[in-house]
Amino acid sequence: MSQEYLKSTIRTIPDYPKKGIMFRDVTTLMQDAKALSIAVDMLAEQYQRHTFDKIAGAEARGFIFGTALALKLGVGFVPLRKPNKLPGKVIKETYQLEYGESSLEAHIDAIQPGEKVLLVDDLLATGGTMLASASLIRRLKGVVEDACFIVSLTDLPGESRLQGEGINCFSLCQYEGE
Amino acid sequence: MSQEYLKSTIRTIPDYPKKGIMFRDVTTLMQDAKALSIAVDMLAEQYQRHTFDKIAGAEARGFIFGTALALKLGVGFVPLRKPNKLPGKVIKETYQLEYGESSLEAHIDAIQPGEKVLLVDDLLATGGTMLASASLIRRLKGVVEDACFIVSLTDLPGESRLQGEGINCFSLCQYEGE
Repeated sequence: MSQEYLKSTIRTIPDYPKKGIMFRDVTTLMQDAKALSIAVDMLAEQYQRHTFDKIAGAEARGFIFGTALALKLGVGFVPLRKPNKLPGKVIKETYQLEYGESSLEAHIDAIQPGEKVLLVDDLLATGGTMLASASLIRRLKGVVEDACFIVSLTDLPGESRLQGEGINCFSLCQYEGE
Repeated sequence: MSQEYLKSTIRTIPDYPKKGIMFRDVTTLMQDAKALSIAVDMLAEQYQRHTFDKIAGAEARGFIFGTALALKLGVGFVPLRKPNKLPGKVIKETYQLEYGESSLEAHIDAIQPGEKVLLVDDLLATGGTMLASASLIRRLKGVVEDACFIVSLTDLPGESRLQGEGINCFSLCQYEGE
């Protein structure tokens, strides 16, 4: 089964980045040609009855599957970047991390009012990056109702936080326990 | 013509990041569905008679077209990342920037000995990031003979430096003058 094959290519690194965390390493999936192709096909199939205008992904790992899926769905890709990386006029969204805070920026003309935008990332944990991404797009008057992931960590609140903001989540592989 | 269409979607921002620099902004190409598709098709066509085992791209903008082209060519994608981002065992390459230095890391098992690797980035300027990328892959005993770009800045020494290391360059759009 495709999902089992994908899971077999995801490497788990115990105690990274700190003791007690089981880190799900998706780089071993993306460097496997078959798994990369299956993953993008499965995401595209999920959205075959949807019509999106753009896909957006956050720096840096959101760029990886975001662009591949944009190509597959025949839409453009919008990179949401860390501060001072985008050369044009931007808006910025700052959000909390476990320790400290982080920010993302979007070009103000990257999304046109009313455009439907699908958010893509490799892994959904607490959802902070995705909520900041959705906020940026909504401030540009884009419509965000869907987000998708290769992996979701189901005992963390990412999915419920996104649903609370009216965003449906879809993931290919689910893991319990960080 | 396709190349002209691509160029029409690339935004030029004068005096960014400093006075006198004409910054070629490829985000406006990638957010255009037609341009994204044409660009990846043109890169794939260039390499239709080549056989690569992997594509590698450097954080962060190399991830964007790298993954899309990997999917198109049916190979895996290897992300070369900034320090302390990859969870597994890595090798590191440090290189000079105009001011200061930067580093890239690769997982030691991302490339198998003898694998042929195509390097991808959005823009070729002085070639520092690409030379560091090639060095990482060669230290893992991968073979690097080709690198491709959406944009190359032809009055900068990137292409000649890469050729000096035995790497052929291909770009879709060329610009003279920084």
